[in-house]
Amino acid sequence: VSERHGDATTDPGLRSWLPVADGSDFPIQNLPFGAFVRAGESKARLGVALGDKIVDLRSLARAGLLDGVLPDALEVFSQPDLNAFLGRGRVAWRALRTRLSCLLSVGLAEMQAAALAERALVAQSDVQMRLPLRVGDYVDFYSSLEHATNLGKILRPGGEPLLPNWRWIPIGYHGRANTIVVSGTPVTRPHGQRKAAEATGPDFGPSRMLDFELELAFVTGDGPPQGTPLPAARAADHIFGVALLNDWSARDLQAWEYQPLGPFLGKSFATSLAPWIVTMDALEPFRVRGPAQEPAPLPYLALEGPQNYDIALEVDLGPHRIARTNFRDMYWSMPQQLAHLASNGARVAAGDLNASGTISGSAPSSYGSLIELTWRGTKPLELPDGTKRGFLEDGDCVTMRGWCERSGAVRIGLGAVTGHVTAAP
Amino acid sequence: VSERHGDATTDPGLRSWLPVADGSDFPIQNLPFGAFVRAGESKARLGVALGDKIVDLRSLARAGLLDGVLPDALEVFSQPDLNAFLGRGRVAWRALRTRLSCLLSVGLAEMQAAALAERALVAQSDVQMRLPLRVGDYVDFYSSLEHATNLGKILRPGGEPLLPNWRWIPIGYHGRANTIVVSGTPVTRPHGQRKAAEATGPDFGPSRMLDFELELAFVTGDGPPQGTPLPAARAADHIFGVALLNDWSARDLQAWEYQPLGPFLGKSFATSLAPWIVTMDALEPFRVRGPAQEPAPLPYLALEGPQNYDIALEVDLGPHRIARTNFRDMYWSMPQQLAHLASNGARVAAGDLNASGTISGSAPSSYGSLIELTWRGTKPLELPDGTKRGFLEDGDCVTMRGWCERSGAVRIGLGAVTGHVTAAP
Repeated sequence: VSERHGDATTDPGLRSWLPVADGSDFPIQNLPFGAFVRAGESKARLGVALGDKIVDLRSLARAGLLDGVLPDALEVFSQPDLNAFLGRGRVAWRALRTRLSCLLSVGLAEMQAAALAERALVAQSDVQMRLPLRVGDYVDFYSSLEHATNLGKILRPGGEPLLPNWRWIPIGYHGRANTIVVSGTPVTRPHGQRKAAEATGPDFGPSRMLDFELELAFVTGDGPPQGTPLPAARAADHIFGVALLNDWSARDLQAWEYQPLGPFLGKSFATSLAPWIVTMDALEPFRVRGPAQEPAPLPYLALEGPQNYDIALEVDLGPHRIARTNFRDMYWSMPQQLAHLASNGARVAAGDLNASGTISGSAPSSYGSLIELTWRGTKPLELPDGTKRGFLEDGDCVTMRGWCERSGAVRIGLGAVTGHVTAAP
Repeated sequence: VSERHGDATTDPGLRSWLPVADGSDFPIQNLPFGAFVRAGESKARLGVALGDKIVDLRSLARAGLLDGVLPDALEVFSQPDLNAFLGRGRVAWRALRTRLSCLLSVGLAEMQAAALAERALVAQSDVQMRLPLRVGDYVDFYSSLEHATNLGKILRPGGEPLLPNWRWIPIGYHGRANTIVVSGTPVTRPHGQRKAAEATGPDFGPSRMLDFELELAFVTGDGPPQGTPLPAARAADHIFGVALLNDWSARDLQAWEYQPLGPFLGKSFATSLAPWIVTMDALEPFRVRGPAQEPAPLPYLALEGPQNYDIALEVDLGPHRIARTNFRDMYWSMPQQLAHLASNGARVAAGDLNASGTISGSAPSSYGSLIELTWRGTKPLELPDGTKRGFLEDGDCVTMRGWCERSGAVRIGLGAVTGHVTAAP
């Protein structure tokens, strides 16, 4: 039995009138959303990626091509971020996707006839990408069983690696929203308190254990009013799409600060987000069952059917591939994370960002952070250029990529999130 | 040697032309900022409290009375929240305060002459208060030595109550910004996972250990760009003012979820903020030295001179006073908290809210939460009406008040933050 679905917008037979190279991240079946700045302008515009171009949504709205889909499309797509559109909810998201798919597909002359192509299409190489949303609340989960187990072994040697609550609760915490930056933004090595095991007190200086974390984040629309939980079965309706995320982490700062209230300065200095948000509708053909959950989730977290997504992931350090894994084996699914987050009545809002936690598989080559790949620096990576890495050095560039592939479906890419480390001030 | 300072705006001799009752929270020396909605309107306006009235800042700006103080006063005070004004920084904050003090003081006819009094003044009893700011990032610190010690004894009996990092780091964590509500908003008892010590697994239901936390929060303007730390000596320049805050806490949810990443759903369902932000300039006469810090703070947290504030605080449960304490004995000061938060390069932004953590003194009657006042419910409070409380019951109303008083200065009040508990859905 296939667990995969889709609709006309994911049909493998669909072709855009704009030529798209085979193997592009952004065929017409994808249409991810982003914010960009054109040369000579300062205000961000909103668009969807198609091949190596971007379709400017405001231009389409001005030409009346989104009439009947979104009542105030011109206003919504004159914003510098996606928040207003996110606030319109699932019906509007789907209606727009269907319309764009139609406008951009072969055989439909409406768009070409509007002589809009020149104005509405811009080359990705000619723009700068911006953060696609104003992030409201940012939550970082901890939903890979393998990652949580590895961290338990590394940070609490001798103890039970997985804490007793982990298989009951999609563990998470709030992170700093206003230090989330778009892919490509340099990341400054943070200062902070570090305490050597044998020292009587900490000292203060640049982190010596700077790390990345390979994650996938989902963006939400508005949920019910504060005080009203979101049922698990409805949670997926409030998830707009996903983007790659690098949760930069200073392990020495984190180890000394995190008891008893959790990570704070070890994480808050920077978090990098990919520029393209790939919709759940585009990912639909790649929906799969996740791992069995044992014990069975409590009823408020119980969900029928496949809730995970088959997304191949890889991490490069400079030119060297250092990890490959897949999102499909995450223990807690995105709808479960969201249902848990909202189960106490906390409000879910358009623009909230919720990250998966580090995505690690069972093989050592599939670990999504250096602390796992090098076992806290004790087994440094030996790179093909002859250098070694326990943790990140100044100048290091980390790039994460993700994509979905299966026979019978068109490849859907997530693009990349990249960032390089600059020296502490 | 007096540690107290002030300027013309805090001069005890200053009188407003509008009569203000003796002992009011809001004499002309205070002028706290808030957002309110007038009867028949839906959009919030910005104002400062004076006695039992509010001075509508947009009305003053329209009349040109703020000309020369803030270049675009009309635009800034046509916003429904203080964020734009907060972004103008300390020089603008001070200039406006000086101008308002002048406009509203006895003997200065400018305002009366403008025949504005009727339009610009509105009775507090005729409006509804709103959240005065769009909260960017919300951080909750843990800066009372007495509270941290009490919680350590309660949650980790037998261990060392204060963890080794506490005297080195102003411990804190990020909380949920979009469930912060203005005083008076009902608070719905949250559902969540609770695990009895003897049970093999958790169940899910309404919290049985709903609590309050007496806190004071400070609001910031913009800091330096991301990646650039804020020196401790400059941190105070970025603090606009303070407001009372109730950090509602579900202790049963918190106890089961908080390892290893800290509080999440035990706190995220609601946080109540007082409507009036009292500026640091108004609090200046009440600046005092805090407790000695031992060990000496690391240089990035070292500050000369008095950094604490003498603010009397009290908590009422319904009509019954259940705690009295003072803010002056907090171990970590607000500038230290902010310097720490920014020490890793994290950006500080206009509209960020940073709470103190529960304010507890050394006497049991000065504890700022029920978990401490009742020692996790083992010693219930006996209220004058004959009822007992281990934790909060549905219908309970919690009110927190704060004020500054000393001879030679005019009393400055913080108003109140109040909220009542409604049943779980």
